[in-house]
Amino acid sequence: MRAMDLAETYREVRAASEALCAPLSPEDCALQSMPDASPAKWHLAHTSWFFETLALEDLPGYAPFHPAFRVLFNSYYQSLGAQHPRPERGVLSRPSLDEVRAYRRHVDRGILRLLDAGAPASAQDVVLLGLHHEQQHQELILTDLKHAFSRSPLRPAYRERAPEPAGPVQPLRWHAVGAGLREIGHAGPDFAFDNERPRHRVFVEAFELASRPVTNAEYLAFVRDGGYARPELWLSDGFATLSALGWKGPLYWEEREGEAWTYTLGGMAPLRADEPVCHLSHYEADAYARWAGARLPTEAEWEVAAEGAARDGGFVETGRFHPGPSPAAGEHPAALFGDVWEWTSSAYAPYPGFRPLAGSLGEYNGKFMSNQLVLRGGSCATPRRHIRRSYRNFFPPDARWQWSGIRLARD
Amino acid sequence: MRAMDLAETYREVRAASEALCAPLSPEDCALQSMPDASPAKWHLAHTSWFFETLALEDLPGYAPFHPAFRVLFNSYYQSLGAQHPRPERGVLSRPSLDEVRAYRRHVDRGILRLLDAGAPASAQDVVLLGLHHEQQHQELILTDLKHAFSRSPLRPAYRERAPEPAGPVQPLRWHAVGAGLREIGHAGPDFAFDNERPRHRVFVEAFELASRPVTNAEYLAFVRDGGYARPELWLSDGFATLSALGWKGPLYWEEREGEAWTYTLGGMAPLRADEPVCHLSHYEADAYARWAGARLPTEAEWEVAAEGAARDGGFVETGRFHPGPSPAAGEHPAALFGDVWEWTSSAYAPYPGFRPLAGSLGEYNGKFMSNQLVLRGGSCATPRRHIRRSYRNFFPPDARWQWSGIRLARD
Amino acid sequence: MRAMDLAETYREVRAASEALCAPLSPEDCALQSMPDASPAKWHLAHTSWFFETLALEDLPGYAPFHPAFRVLFNSYYQSLGAQHPRPERGVLSRPSLDEVRAYRRHVDRGILRLLDAGAPASAQDVVLLGLHHEQQHQELILTDLKHAFSRSPLRPAYRERAPEPAGPVQPLRWHAVGAGLREIGHAGPDFAFDNERPRHRVFVEAFELASRPVTNAEYLAFVRDGGYARPELWLSDGFATLSALGWKGPLYWEEREGEAWTYTLGGMAPLRADEPVCHLSHYEADAYARWAGARLPTEAEWEVAAEGAARDGGFVETGRFHPGPSPAAGEHPAALFGDVWEWTSSAYAPYPGFRPLAGSLGEYNGKFMSNQLVLRGGSCATPRRHIRRSYRNFFPPDARWQWSGIRLARD
Amino acid sequence: MRAMDLAETYREVRAASEALCAPLSPEDCALQSMPDASPAKWHLAHTSWFFETLALEDLPGYAPFHPAFRVLFNSYYQSLGAQHPRPERGVLSRPSLDEVRAYRRHVDRGILRLLDAGAPASAQDVVLLGLHHEQQHQELILTDLKHAFSRSPLRPAYRERAPEPAGPVQPLRWHAVGAGLREIGHAGPDFAFDNERPRHRVFVEAFELASRPVTNAEYLAFVRDGGYARPELWLSDGFATLSALGWKGPLYWEEREGEAWTYTLGGMAPLRADEPVCHLSHYEADAYARWAGARLPTEAEWEVAAEGAARDGGFVETGRFHPGPSPAAGEHPAALFGDVWEWTSSAYAPYPGFRPLAGSLGEYNGKFMSNQLVLRGGSCATPRRHIRRSYRNFFPPDARWQWSGIRLARD
Repeated sequence: MRAMDLAETYREVRAASEALCAPLSPEDCALQSMPDASPAKWHLAHTSWFFETLALEDLPGYAPFHPAFRVLFNSYYQSLGAQHPRPERGVLSRPSLDEVRAYRRHVDRGILRLLDAGAPASAQDVVLLGLHHEQQHQELILTDLKHAFSRSPLRPAYRERAPEPAGPVQPLRWHAVGAGLREIGHAGPDFAFDNERPRHRVFVEAFELASRPVTNAEYLAFVRDGGYARPELWLSDGFATLSALGWKGPLYWEEREGEAWTYTLGGMAPLRADEPVCHLSHYEADAYARWAGARLPTEAEWEVAAEGAARDGGFVETGRFHPGPSPAAGEHPAALFGDVWEWTSSAYAPYPGFRPLAGSLGEYNGKFMSNQLVLRGGSCATPRRHIRRSYRNFFPPDARWQWSGIRLARD
Repeated sequence: MRAMDLAETYREVRAASEALCAPLSPEDCALQSMPDASPAKWHLAHTSWFFETLALEDLPGYAPFHPAFRVLFNSYYQSLGAQHPRPERGVLSRPSLDEVRAYRRHVDRGILRLLDAGAPASAQDVVLLGLHHEQQHQELILTDLKHAFSRSPLRPAYRERAPEPAGPVQPLRWHAVGAGLREIGHAGPDFAFDNERPRHRVFVEAFELASRPVTNAEYLAFVRDGGYARPELWLSDGFATLSALGWKGPLYWEEREGEAWTYTLGGMAPLRADEPVCHLSHYEADAYARWAGARLPTEAEWEVAAEGAARDGGFVETGRFHPGPSPAAGEHPAALFGDVWEWTSSAYAPYPGFRPLAGSLGEYNGKFMSNQLVLRGGSCATPRRHIRRSYRNFFPPDARWQWSGIRLARD
Repeated sequence: MRAMDLAETYREVRAASEALCAPLSPEDCALQSMPDASPAKWHLAHTSWFFETLALEDLPGYAPFHPAFRVLFNSYYQSLGAQHPRPERGVLSRPSLDEVRAYRRHVDRGILRLLDAGAPASAQDVVLLGLHHEQQHQELILTDLKHAFSRSPLRPAYRERAPEPAGPVQPLRWHAVGAGLREIGHAGPDFAFDNERPRHRVFVEAFELASRPVTNAEYLAFVRDGGYARPELWLSDGFATLSALGWKGPLYWEEREGEAWTYTLGGMAPLRADEPVCHLSHYEADAYARWAGARLPTEAEWEVAAEGAARDGGFVETGRFHPGPSPAAGEHPAALFGDVWEWTSSAYAPYPGFRPLAGSLGEYNGKFMSNQLVLRGGSCATPRRHIRRSYRNFFPPDARWQWSGIRLARD
Repeated sequence: MRAMDLAETYREVRAASEALCAPLSPEDCALQSMPDASPAKWHLAHTSWFFETLALEDLPGYAPFHPAFRVLFNSYYQSLGAQHPRPERGVLSRPSLDEVRAYRRHVDRGILRLLDAGAPASAQDVVLLGLHHEQQHQELILTDLKHAFSRSPLRPAYRERAPEPAGPVQPLRWHAVGAGLREIGHAGPDFAFDNERPRHRVFVEAFELASRPVTNAEYLAFVRDGGYARPELWLSDGFATLSALGWKGPLYWEEREGEAWTYTLGGMAPLRADEPVCHLSHYEADAYARWAGARLPTEAEWEVAAEGAARDGGFVETGRFHPGPSPAAGEHPAALFGDVWEWTSSAYAPYPGFRPLAGSLGEYNGKFMSNQLVLRGGSCATPRRHIRRSYRNFFPPDARWQWSGIRLARD
């Protein structure tokens, strides 16, 4: 996403959030099915809180929409005061969805007035950051809603989707990359999060990267080979997790009369052999790779291999809300961008020379650099303009409710 | 409640449930703030499920409203199949409130057709039981909503209530009852739950019962006397509970600038000295009694003392949704009925000769006869016609979200 | 136990505690396998702490054995100051077992000097109470040790026991008792705990009591009839407990090659058909009774029926440490005393007019009168002189590590 | 440790384990104070199990000491069958300490006979690995015992230690290292664990490393500056952990009459200003570094800076069992080896080209490569011959019971 015309981009991004909620009732928008997930209404409000608190509240003449919202919709910014407890975001019927929409209008007027008046560069930076922030929450609106809907015995559809026949699967090939001193990370004037900087040197040994993500058919073979009952394939914490939680397969997979089905935002659907497997934890991705005689790539390997690769996977704009079969790979591996987030073996850690943003914005990324692993490439729920080669997503190794899948690597 | 004209009563009771939800939005009706509490929408649906499953589904020609509802809205009847997990009642945005209302209309048509066609006595018994069941859930709609609203920093009001000045408090007097062989429990043709039967003999020693419930002012004196920090006043389990949960006073009390306030369904309000204290656990009621040099009554003592007493407390029909100051006592103790449920020292146990209802209805009461204590008399949220002298309500000793208070006794 | 010669009794009871520990190593005596159970060493020390703190520490010239023991070995007396946390009793290797024995000698000298000098009646009362207290802990030494040993894959024997062939089982007969106003509880000058007083009137309806406890063979039939998978037989809390904990049968039962075995203090042994079933929770006892078309007795029924019954069961003095086959019943039901504690349906509650002992001793019993049920009659681990007809033991409904069994009743 | 004469080394290492337990009673050796820690007796047995299971049990003529020990003393080797549950290692009074010692003798005879008979190289490799394994457990005997003793109100001493006066603290200086492509990891024929291999290239930016570990005095200043109440200094997971667990300072620190004391294996002692701070979690080390305007080193930085550094810190052979004041730094930073393990910012992950050992030994290290961070350098409880520059220790970020401290770095 570039800030060619910031006000216009602002309008587009803000409208996109609301478009995602258009098919939903107020009750749908209030669901919270686990502490890690938030109601869609909360996402709509919190993204507005971000603009209000970080760009508007200190402006002369700006009147906050509601005095309680500063606490209610603060996610985790300790330097900005108290926060409503995260696990209790679903216990808020008030403000109503209509009130939250009015809150959005109020903030929109403030931001557009600010931009119209010729905002200083620092304020423009905050607005731009707020738009990238809002795009992150657009993806979360979908992942969190999918989780909540999946807990209903009705398995409701977000949007009905006509079944499509499975097609042929691209053969798995290996793209070789030679050893050498490389550079990763973001440099230059374009937008990037602080955690993508600075661009820095890293030595990468020779490796090969798979030409496409692992498919449902391949993963099903792992499951049917007893993958979930063989501790030697798993990290110790991974096997303890699957034992404690009773995992038998990826999140949302269900067996119905001997057939594998999966819950999608289009409702329950038979598992398609040609689609990338998704909703996997890092532990499952790692175990599958070991079973397959391969491994997960490091984030440096991924980024090096992605140099020059096209955005040839599916993004949120397709309206499919589900990963699609991978296209054929050419010079580069296919579907590095879009469809499924790809787990790497890299802990989410600061780059050498990392400097968090100043002030409260320093809490955006840096304080989460523990107990998480990096995922790369974006998914079928990511806005196309949001992703970059240097983009670092991160989740704990047991998280499964994102559209997360597997790209294999080997020495 | 008598079944003079069952169809007419049916219409009244069903309408009363919906009237309670009239001031609420669909989002309000979907809130579940703890596993013990349920969304108002669930209560509306479950009470209909009760009629559908127990009175309608076997009738020729009756078509269930939705195939999934039999599981979704089964509360705890193991003999009627699977149940949607209780802690997840709040994760259901579908069916919508409108669909649940349509479900109610569908069931209403079925029941009224059944009654109109001259239902057999056994079917009439089930319908009558279903109405008493629905009245129980009317009270729970209010207690559960109050709990959910209390978790919002906005402390929203269910219905705005104009502040009323506190009045004088009736002096506490003691009503003496002599020792003797008495009878308690329900007999006769009128409706009563199975747990109130059979009427049976019990020997009661001489005792005295307080003329009115304990007031906020009296309980505040206990709090200010260090009541919550003196283990010698508490049952061992009670002190462990208050220590683990950090209780400093009754549920919903808050200190604001040195003054005691409480959350009510009319919003936050200064604590009124003349109102009965409420939202207490059994542990707190027991500790207060010990501090006051008294004790809680047994349920037999309560029932004996209530013989001939008037329904002079406030019920749900007052629209106050909060206990009011006790009237003056005459020959009998005042406010035995209404305002606050009164904790007894009696474990909820079967009466001698207890026989549960036949079939699935046997699960209504009997299987809960462990780890609970009996409360008597009804509250400000109880329908006036619902309560009886022999009525046994029951909750675990740490439950506080009902309108539960204290009536003292002594030897 | 009578205080004919208090000093002589003191010597006997104290010696009996140590005799129980004689077969054990210091490591055995330090085991704590769950928060509810304590190491044998702790029991040896705590019973001495009781005498030291309540009878000796205020005497002129008495020097406490060790300044830290007052906290270390205080069980739950809040009025006597801080307590070492109960779940951490097993994390104390110091004091050693030898030091605890020296502590016992030190306290013994103090008590015997006190008695020798002509102790006032009030001091004699405390010593007598301390001896009954110590006998309670003698039983706990065995129950707690059995639990700890059972957690070892070696299933060690406390004392080897030669296998004995099973004999014929006495047929189950019913002893009828007519309705009437009765008296229960203890009166008179002999020792009894405060919770057994005062003797008081209670109206008991006509009932029948089984001639002997339920046997292993009978209980096994319940298990094989799917008893643990049929929720309609269980209290709701009971079925939730068995589901959460995965109970498939009584504590200590194991299936080995299709045969039922059980762990005993003599090691693993095939289940004997003729022995009373034991190590049951109240929930299991209640479910069995329902399955058998009967119910558990109330404690009043039990006490009324036990009037005149002989102590014809086995006690700790047999050295068997396991319940034995019931003798034939005569005029009274057999084995009411000894072999297995018999769960009643009565909540542990104060008798009418109950007065706890004065001072710290008031914490002995009264504060535990919630969430527990009464058991009657003593077990194979109870000292014979310790038990009485009015004796009230009490445990939570899910407790299974005592020798607790079933005596059926019916209307 | 070199295998100059393997049999002689075997005798020395085995004897060292038992020497550590010499001051302990059998009760001391049976303590387990948390699931992460194990009894000393278990360590003595498990290290023998390692030799028996991996080097002896397949030899013709070898008779295992006890059939149950294969499960009882298996730590976590899934490929070697079932394991006694880790949290229940303290519930084993049998086998006794004497029996475990006999087990050790039995295994010793087997190993020495094997070596004497001219063991093949592969068997010698396993024995050598077993000795390094046993040295790791020697350190754990001390850390686990310290934790267990600290839970006793008596705070017993493992070995009495005469107080020594604090001396002057070496000033903190910075050692600069230039950017460049370096090599880390182990190469060559000497022993190293699989996780230290292969030696590989890594690009390291210019950095500076502190001349000595952070002292108690420096850390106390952080505590007194409100370090534990300022979320902006902490990783998000770290602040959540300290809030949940109520941390106010390092493990084992206690305030007594306004003075800072700490528990040591010599008993309680006033905090010495000149000693390195220890028993810190990664979260605390990271927060201190942020407060101090610095950061933790990566493991590559640490290893590069340690090239050529002397083993000038204290090891277990000093008999001090506590870190000592750092010596003066010369050309290299001081005390890189010994005294305290130094937290790095590096996740414990496989080196490029990592290959676990074949067979069951592959479970030794590789499966723990998640959710842990690398520590470097050894501690006051590490055998001097055990540590190497390439040695990678690893613990979860909240672990505090090792002698873990802080070495600062900066860009």
